[in-house]
Amino acid sequence: MSRILSSEKPPMGWNSYDYYDTTVTEREVRANAEYMSQNLKEYGWEYIVVDIQWYAHYAGTRREECQYIPFGKVEIDEYSRLWPCPGRFPSSAGGQGFKPLADYIHGLGLKFGIHIMRGIPRIAAHNCMKIMNTDITADRISDPYSICSWNPDMYGVIPQAEGAQAYYDSVFQLYAQWGVDFIKCDDICRMDAASAKEEIRMLHDAIKNSGRQMVLSLSPGPARLDEAWHYETYSNMWRITDDFWDDWKLLKQMFVRCEHWQNHVSEGNYPDCDMLPVGMLGKGFGDERMTRFTKDEQITMMTLWCIFRSPLMIGAELTLMDKWTKGLLTNPEVLALLSDKCKASQLARNGDRCIWYSSHRENGFNYLAVFNLSEEESEIVIQTCLLNIENFKDICFKELWTGEIFTCTTKDLVLKVPGHGAKLCRFQQT
Amino acid sequence: MSRILSSEKPPMGWNSYDYYDTTVTEREVRANAEYMSQNLKEYGWEYIVVDIQWYAHYAGTRREECQYIPFGKVEIDEYSRLWPCPGRFPSSAGGQGFKPLADYIHGLGLKFGIHIMRGIPRIAAHNCMKIMNTDITADRISDPYSICSWNPDMYGVIPQAEGAQAYYDSVFQLYAQWGVDFIKCDDICRMDAASAKEEIRMLHDAIKNSGRQMVLSLSPGPARLDEAWHYETYSNMWRITDDFWDDWKLLKQMFVRCEHWQNHVSEGNYPDCDMLPVGMLGKGFGDERMTRFTKDEQITMMTLWCIFRSPLMIGAELTLMDKWTKGLLTNPEVLALLSDKCKASQLARNGDRCIWYSSHRENGFNYLAVFNLSEEESEIVIQTCLLNIENFKDICFKELWTGEIFTCTTKDLVLKVPGHGAKLCRFQQT
Amino acid sequence: MSRILSSEKPPMGWNSYDYYDTTVTEREVRANAEYMSQNLKEYGWEYIVVDIQWYAHYAGTRREECQYIPFGKVEIDEYSRLWPCPGRFPSSAGGQGFKPLADYIHGLGLKFGIHIMRGIPRIAAHNCMKIMNTDITADRISDPYSICSWNPDMYGVIPQAEGAQAYYDSVFQLYAQWGVDFIKCDDICRMDAASAKEEIRMLHDAIKNSGRQMVLSLSPGPARLDEAWHYETYSNMWRITDDFWDDWKLLKQMFVRCEHWQNHVSEGNYPDCDMLPVGMLGKGFGDERMTRFTKDEQITMMTLWCIFRSPLMIGAELTLMDKWTKGLLTNPEVLALLSDKCKASQLARNGDRCIWYSSHRENGFNYLAVFNLSEEESEIVIQTCLLNIENFKDICFKELWTGEIFTCTTKDLVLKVPGHGAKLCRFQQT
Amino acid sequence: MSRILSSEKPPMGWNSYDYYDTTVTEREVRANAEYMSQNLKEYGWEYIVVDIQWYAHYAGTRREECQYIPFGKVEIDEYSRLWPCPGRFPSSAGGQGFKPLADYIHGLGLKFGIHIMRGIPRIAAHNCMKIMNTDITADRISDPYSICSWNPDMYGVIPQAEGAQAYYDSVFQLYAQWGVDFIKCDDICRMDAASAKEEIRMLHDAIKNSGRQMVLSLSPGPARLDEAWHYETYSNMWRITDDFWDDWKLLKQMFVRCEHWQNHVSEGNYPDCDMLPVGMLGKGFGDERMTRFTKDEQITMMTLWCIFRSPLMIGAELTLMDKWTKGLLTNPEVLALLSDKCKASQLARNGDRCIWYSSHRENGFNYLAVFNLSEEESEIVIQTCLLNIENFKDICFKELWTGEIFTCTTKDLVLKVPGHGAKLCRFQQT
Repeated sequence: MSRILSSEKPPMGWNSYDYYDTTVTEREVRANAEYMSQNLKEYGWEYIVVDIQWYAHYAGTRREECQYIPFGKVEIDEYSRLWPCPGRFPSSAGGQGFKPLADYIHGLGLKFGIHIMRGIPRIAAHNCMKIMNTDITADRISDPYSICSWNPDMYGVIPQAEGAQAYYDSVFQLYAQWGVDFIKCDDICRMDAASAKEEIRMLHDAIKNSGRQMVLSLSPGPARLDEAWHYETYSNMWRITDDFWDDWKLLKQMFVRCEHWQNHVSEGNYPDCDMLPVGMLGKGFGDERMTRFTKDEQITMMTLWCIFRSPLMIGAELTLMDKWTKGLLTNPEVLALLSDKCKASQLARNGDRCIWYSSHRENGFNYLAVFNLSEEESEIVIQTCLLNIENFKDICFKELWTGEIFTCTTKDLVLKVPGHGAKLCRFQQT
Repeated sequence: MSRILSSEKPPMGWNSYDYYDTTVTEREVRANAEYMSQNLKEYGWEYIVVDIQWYAHYAGTRREECQYIPFGKVEIDEYSRLWPCPGRFPSSAGGQGFKPLADYIHGLGLKFGIHIMRGIPRIAAHNCMKIMNTDITADRISDPYSICSWNPDMYGVIPQAEGAQAYYDSVFQLYAQWGVDFIKCDDICRMDAASAKEEIRMLHDAIKNSGRQMVLSLSPGPARLDEAWHYETYSNMWRITDDFWDDWKLLKQMFVRCEHWQNHVSEGNYPDCDMLPVGMLGKGFGDERMTRFTKDEQITMMTLWCIFRSPLMIGAELTLMDKWTKGLLTNPEVLALLSDKCKASQLARNGDRCIWYSSHRENGFNYLAVFNLSEEESEIVIQTCLLNIENFKDICFKELWTGEIFTCTTKDLVLKVPGHGAKLCRFQQT
Repeated sequence: MSRILSSEKPPMGWNSYDYYDTTVTEREVRANAEYMSQNLKEYGWEYIVVDIQWYAHYAGTRREECQYIPFGKVEIDEYSRLWPCPGRFPSSAGGQGFKPLADYIHGLGLKFGIHIMRGIPRIAAHNCMKIMNTDITADRISDPYSICSWNPDMYGVIPQAEGAQAYYDSVFQLYAQWGVDFIKCDDICRMDAASAKEEIRMLHDAIKNSGRQMVLSLSPGPARLDEAWHYETYSNMWRITDDFWDDWKLLKQMFVRCEHWQNHVSEGNYPDCDMLPVGMLGKGFGDERMTRFTKDEQITMMTLWCIFRSPLMIGAELTLMDKWTKGLLTNPEVLALLSDKCKASQLARNGDRCIWYSSHRENGFNYLAVFNLSEEESEIVIQTCLLNIENFKDICFKELWTGEIFTCTTKDLVLKVPGHGAKLCRFQQT
Repeated sequence: MSRILSSEKPPMGWNSYDYYDTTVTEREVRANAEYMSQNLKEYGWEYIVVDIQWYAHYAGTRREECQYIPFGKVEIDEYSRLWPCPGRFPSSAGGQGFKPLADYIHGLGLKFGIHIMRGIPRIAAHNCMKIMNTDITADRISDPYSICSWNPDMYGVIPQAEGAQAYYDSVFQLYAQWGVDFIKCDDICRMDAASAKEEIRMLHDAIKNSGRQMVLSLSPGPARLDEAWHYETYSNMWRITDDFWDDWKLLKQMFVRCEHWQNHVSEGNYPDCDMLPVGMLGKGFGDERMTRFTKDEQITMMTLWCIFRSPLMIGAELTLMDKWTKGLLTNPEVLALLSDKCKASQLARNGDRCIWYSSHRENGFNYLAVFNLSEEESEIVIQTCLLNIENFKDICFKELWTGEIFTCTTKDLVLKVPGHGAKLCRFQQT
């Protein structure tokens, strides 16, 4: 099948949303990129993604009242295409767009991504603006009944309208000129709008037509299980949850979602557990804080995201990152689980515990991730029958978060795991 | 309760939609008004209602593609208020609005009504136009997420926004100046939008604040049974069905709806069965035709609408009306059922037959309407126990459609009724 | 319409459920009847109702595990009809059934009611037991797919099956022999089962066929608004809520339900707000207690039930009743609101307050019930426009709970009402 | 994880339902087994499955009225376990059960399966019958609220009840004694009942505890996509559709279902498209007929079932099978697609066409199945980009239904396919 990404692992990067909400500036993006280049790149982290509202003037100025200003001023060209707001992205002035910023990030050895909303600016439709390379005007391809339920900026595009693909092509031609490597398209994954499914295909075709390889990431979730084939065929990653934050209830629910989507992880196809809300978060939301997750919960999260092979996008402001958090994100033996050569599956799950297994198809490494979903520390038994093996006795394990090495002395493996915590054990079968 | 209409019967009139769709012109409205004045007024018919899109330029010009043109040009003043399109309503030019047409209709001894959409024009919000008598602009009272699912013109108004009631007041102040007697507000009755319930109250208040009495009619249905009190308190009539047309299936369903709403008919409060699709219909829809209802079905419809006391709005082009249809609409003994002094209730209903009873609280007249919902003529028995009377024997009946007078010779009353047909019998108890 | 009850007010009585759950005995029923006869009868209280499981052996003995014992032993005759369990109702032994108890209650000047479940005992179907006066056996009229979702005793009856009406007739013939005056039929009002609607009609017909007048009361709610006509035509009272208990949240919700059903209260037709959980409650549930309602909340409840004209059924163990509670239930000026000559309607309602109005069609009395649904005491304004009167000034009011008499000194009436409380004011218009 | 079947391909066999409904007899089962042994076994066909109601006396005798007789007599032992009705299965008399029939079938080199209903006989619960090897009686493990919506025989089992697993163990111990190889459990797959999910696990455990390997097949569908992991972990095959019959609409829908489930086919795990309604069908339903599917539709069906790797169960009466149908079912080059070494995926699908691809992981064979879902013959283009190959030119194909061999002369492959028909082409990449 024609997939738009060849990769060896799911995308790893940083996203501006969890810390900045709608307000991130070029200076802040550059500072995070510099941090990543110097501190994280060697571990595989590479994407720098500017999230929502980069085209909006006054973004965030009426935050107590609304996240997105209705009918607010946007930066737009004569062809109905949004541009970065030069007040926040100074290098974009003078028709430069995101090219100078993308060039800078490429110069750091990283890749550059942006967020977009499904559709075409409402203002373009009401003003009958042009569509590039056509005689069509925006009112003819805009669907006045196709709106996003939480953002007021866009109308959906009418897939069968003449000029509709031309519009998306013109937008992605611009992104290709800018040097964009990653597109997070919003208001599309959950298929709230009737045309969203077709618009996913149009985005896919627009990327192909642009001639530049870009990762296509779809939001928000939960994605629809019965549309898995469509996501797999036309995109690279799709959100399997609504916005994820530092809240144990949401983390616990992710075990259900990972069960649902485990058979849909493959090379170039990554169901997405959403950003990692670690480190310093929430400034743009008026709630700046260190993550509310405990250390055990963060280990649980990283273990699940890695064994499941979710994309990893850091939500923290990188320049404020503490040492523990950096350690959490840069454990090479854990990150090795992300490889396309690893294949994982859930072995058991109930309200109290969950067990996943993964194996590398070449190097002989096997992994057991054992999660304690209850409130209290407990001993979790991994029975041999779960893995169809004879005996755990005498098998040597390495717990990858602590580095502890131990040999099992019993038929079944028994691990003591803290409440809300996890153990991730690597072993080789003989 | 503060109701906005004192009346002796439900409104009776003509509406432009069933024949003209979105295209009716002033000349055509005047012709229908003249016909009504000369032929129908004496029977109680009095309202002339201009339906949807009177403010829209080019209405109907892309009919094969869409009923309502998205992002099309509308006639609007500096205060975000829509005005008649002068191309179709020449007398409205020069700031006259509907006043000349209303004056003309009043001069014929009739009343004048217009259709409106819930909310404020989208173009007013996007252009941040003024709200009269305030410092507020339209973008501040418009809800970008509150749209109609089938018409692209308006945004809903945010009820709690400063300036929101001022907007509706300014609109109804204009309608009062024009001399409007009847408002059919669309996209509001079914409460599809979260704010629709509050907007009904705002319309009610705006009429009160205008100082002019206007009937408030809400569309489209089906209205919500659990909001009956709200409709009764803040409006005069509300649609209990989606658009009604000349189709037996829709007519048969109306018996269910009338059962549901029968306890909510009272002076000034009229659940609405929708327009009467009789006579010549459908020109604006590209389907000009005589009604598809048989004569028996039309008698069934008129009998039900009248005994239930629905508002009566003729859908036909009046100037093309044939003699039989005129007779259907001008039977004074049938129309007498509409009086606020009559109170009706359903006595029985199943898939095959339905029986209604009404009585006039002063003149001693009782009415039995007997409907045959099956395909075949059949004898329908009205048992004495249904009316808690001893005996029908020797009671004298007049069938009001045929004028036939007969005396019952049996304990129970037995009537032969054609398939899809009805008998309407008046009698006096001794 | 053929209604099965002629009455002057909704039924008033006592029901065993709220105190005894499934365990009430004959001795306890008699004690409550005696109390009612001596203390409450003069105020209009007259029904003594034995609630669920009077036919079940061992009822309540596995209470920690289940309310109703699955596949438990029931007292049943050869004709598939349930009889009182003689262990708990000793006078029923020897084929007497409830006749001796009914006779005793009648002797006290009261009326006797029982609870039944929709349908036929499952055991009768599995054992192919007889249906009286027919050659049909129970397996032929029992619907194996029609069960109650919370009680395991019965199968629904197949309405169109030969012998089905004969079964219900045989059961009601027995109840008529016993002298039953009131039937509370359960698992039927909400129409969970497809046949429930038809079974309501079958119960109605069985009562008519029995030759004895019995009140037909339908449970549990919420009743379906779109089936109002069916309830009105075939029963006397129907539950508009699920089980009601001493919980403010449930009481607050009742204001919504009373709004919905207000147009369906008429002579012989009483939407039912459920039992009054006052006084001593809950013994059979293992939670014996005085009601958790505050006195203000109890005044709110009694005021709403009375002005709405709900049936009144006391949940308390009567023999343990305190003086305050007795006063609450025996205020003749409040109970006067129940008269079929009073007609009430809601004037206003939002989250904070609710206002009802009632007037007596003969004696000139008007009533205003003013409810404060908020947590705090507040002044509630009753505007003249709500009642379409000119002025409250100089009108003299009597507050019926306190007896206080006062004259309004302002145009609008202003009442100070405690949080969760109510004022009930009677006045005469001049 | 611990799967209960090791296999090289999905089960292939014959099922009595499509021809016999509830009425199949031992003689008829033997005749079909003999036919299979002599004519089909060599192609991989091996299971002989007796479907629903083998325990019911008088099954089918009230067919015009009901498919399953409510409260009818069943063959049951003292331990609440159902046995074959000796009237229809004479060899089962005298406590032999299905052992003689199973032995006979095994002697033909085939395997033996039976249908069961989820739960425990209702009659066992009402009569408080014993559970083997326990002191528990059936009333204590039966859930009176857990019934099947279309069959009246059973109550669901309460998973957490003491004795519940013992009941299922006792039943499967009996099946192991009989020599059963295949269990089709009904009323469980769709999880209509709350306990169904846990009962699936209990069946799995009961099979393990029985010590005999049996295929566990779950019905009816549609199975729940979000429970895929549960089906995979605890069963071997699960129905992805409601009952499938010889109706093009149902066949067309199967393409959607196969898209949904394609990632869940693996060794020992087979989403089930249901029986093949080919040949002579429907006698027990009073509608004996040759399949209503055209030959093209049958080729479409077999192609889809085989490339998807559904279990294959023949619905036809085998002894009446014509030559064409036999050819359809015994094409070894087509049946080779069922191998666990083949892995398939959908390449494209819309309303008009569908394309699947499969490849054998060892022998280098690739397969393209091209379906024409429209009414008319059409040329279907398979673009190279769908398979990520450079060029179809010069690749040699064999169409497996016709045997035709051809070499592609163009870059994209173009196939002419009849309406409702399919082509199945095998090729090797160079």
